[in-house]
Amino acid sequence: MAYQMVCVQCGAKHDSSRYRLHCESCGGLLDTLYDTPATVEARVVSGAKGTARYLPTLPLNDPANLVTMGEGDTPVVPLPRVGQALGLSDVSAKMEYFNPTGSFKDRGNTIQVSVLKDTGVTEVADATGGNAGHSFAAYCARAGIKFHGFVNDANADSRKVHAIALHGTQVHWVGPGRAARNDGARKYAEDSGILQMNYGQNIYFIEGLKTLAYEIAEQMDPLPDHIIVPIGNGSIYQGMWKGFKEMLEDGRVKRMPKLHGAQTEETQPVVAAFEGRDWTPQPGDPKSKANGIGVQVTPRPAALLQGAKDSGGRFVAVSEDKILEWQRALAELEGIIVEPTSAIVLGAAEKLKEAGVIRGADRVLLPLTGFGVKEPIPGY
Amino acid sequence: MAYQMVCVQCGAKHDSSRYRLHCESCGGLLDTLYDTPATVEARVVSGAKGTARYLPTLPLNDPANLVTMGEGDTPVVPLPRVGQALGLSDVSAKMEYFNPTGSFKDRGNTIQVSVLKDTGVTEVADATGGNAGHSFAAYCARAGIKFHGFVNDANADSRKVHAIALHGTQVHWVGPGRAARNDGARKYAEDSGILQMNYGQNIYFIEGLKTLAYEIAEQMDPLPDHIIVPIGNGSIYQGMWKGFKEMLEDGRVKRMPKLHGAQTEETQPVVAAFEGRDWTPQPGDPKSKANGIGVQVTPRPAALLQGAKDSGGRFVAVSEDKILEWQRALAELEGIIVEPTSAIVLGAAEKLKEAGVIRGADRVLLPLTGFGVKEPIPGY
Repeated sequence: MAYQMVCVQCGAKHDSSRYRLHCESCGGLLDTLYDTPATVEARVVSGAKGTARYLPTLPLNDPANLVTMGEGDTPVVPLPRVGQALGLSDVSAKMEYFNPTGSFKDRGNTIQVSVLKDTGVTEVADATGGNAGHSFAAYCARAGIKFHGFVNDANADSRKVHAIALHGTQVHWVGPGRAARNDGARKYAEDSGILQMNYGQNIYFIEGLKTLAYEIAEQMDPLPDHIIVPIGNGSIYQGMWKGFKEMLEDGRVKRMPKLHGAQTEETQPVVAAFEGRDWTPQPGDPKSKANGIGVQVTPRPAALLQGAKDSGGRFVAVSEDKILEWQRALAELEGIIVEPTSAIVLGAAEKLKEAGVIRGADRVLLPLTGFGVKEPIPGY
Repeated sequence: MAYQMVCVQCGAKHDSSRYRLHCESCGGLLDTLYDTPATVEARVVSGAKGTARYLPTLPLNDPANLVTMGEGDTPVVPLPRVGQALGLSDVSAKMEYFNPTGSFKDRGNTIQVSVLKDTGVTEVADATGGNAGHSFAAYCARAGIKFHGFVNDANADSRKVHAIALHGTQVHWVGPGRAARNDGARKYAEDSGILQMNYGQNIYFIEGLKTLAYEIAEQMDPLPDHIIVPIGNGSIYQGMWKGFKEMLEDGRVKRMPKLHGAQTEETQPVVAAFEGRDWTPQPGDPKSKANGIGVQVTPRPAALLQGAKDSGGRFVAVSEDKILEWQRALAELEGIIVEPTSAIVLGAAEKLKEAGVIRGADRVLLPLTGFGVKEPIPGY
């Protein structure tokens, strides 16, 4: 629907005819600004399913450019035995890995890639290698967009990288470190005159994650008291926060659930900022099995802290042992296998329960973000 | 709902208070016989979602014993670019890998394991190692049923086996060959006095697959002209055939889609039977990457041939090259990665188009049964 881009730093406005990462005035990151009226009737496409149901508050000028393959509409499943282990009587999962590439990233990429199509982009470069990259490669394939993916050669054996390649991605191998991938993508994009994507910095990916909040509001009555998500770039957290804010405006919800975020002890810049501690980015790649959230520099920290303030949520760090312990407990008690990056939310629930933030009878929702067989299962 | 078991060979009836594999009179395989009236109102639970929606024609005496975790309710997604490559104007996928363990097997196991719970079984043994075994292990974990899984030690590196173990399965390692697994499970079950499962022979698993047909009838108007599925044991084929037969009775559908089945050239007992050729089971394990359908001895061949006769469907064999070619084409053209066992249906569509069985304007539905990252991706 009709929307503009607005700078989060200086407030400058830009039209939505181009794919935009940064403000043209000050270089700041951008947010969206919709013309859509704040009524449910104007915002929800009655009868439509999946992403198409929520198009009026998604950043597409022409809805025909939606690149979709059944993402979203994920079920909410009770976790009674995990709840018992946590001392909680009402714990559910939202099965976010029931998605085309096996992770919640598909909600972001259906929109991110749709915006590429909507703005006429046909060729892009970006760092890649994980769930976000696999998902992006899949949606680019579906849209017929040529993707140059820069991958660390140390990850040549990763099944996610094989999936990225099978989607027809032009794989460019680079040396170790996250910087090498980004540098390679930037240089290639500059030399070739093509767009450099950056899924961690653009707002489109975050916008796609709003659909998670929209669905929760339609599926759960009463709403959960607490929702806990993993925090790397924080896209899922920000998407939910934005989604619930919009629904408070238009009356779809009467209150916002407490939105909590989980990071590893190894990489916890958001937890540190929340607690007012200093955090120094660590050299080298993270060693935690929860590698999907090993993000040293958070792109939009202010938005995350504001989301916690608005919702009454917290950010907590979870130890490696607890992450792996809960991954196994979820598999043994409930029959569900998720990646360590996803299992971390159970460890966060335990900490928040111990801290008295979550009480025994509270209603707790855990989005389970990534399917556990996408990478080697720890311990085997 | 109230049901009896009836022998497919001698017609003897048995009550449903126990988990039953074989007829007590003649040893034949069993089928179900419901008391449920043949009306839509009696058969579909209005307002319910997923498996619970169809409980009146599923083999549970007490609906409270349903072991469920969000399986089913999978979306139908258009495949326009694959359709173009096939010379077909209306091809869609039903995304059967959007399921708890990443394959359609969850539809069978939600019912199979529910029946175990419904009949008071708390400990079982079976051969395991693939998608069916992973799914079974997951549902047993959720139900709190102890599962002794017999796995070939040659598969110790398989991620599916790691997943089976993570679910708390007691893994028993045995030597090579499918027979070693079955022999091990049978001997252990006899020695321990516990039940030996056999998912390929029992009717409960097939009953669960009826939900696939029920959903298709609710999602697609007009119905597809053709549906193509992979054939190993043939559970998905028989489940759809049974489901459509029931819906013809109660008026939910007016006609049955042509139900086609695909096998590999290497292991094609059903194609041979359909074409009136002899088929001799091959020694050793199959070499095709479509290993999920390498079943040498079909448990219920008569039902498959009857399904083809009823629906006007066919069984075709697809070459290894074509399976892998279509796996890649689906990933490159539509953004979807499935296992070779699943990609075979695209090769079958190509053959049926060439044979004039499927015409250019026909409506074709391809259930995509298994997520492609559950096993190594061929070529990488």
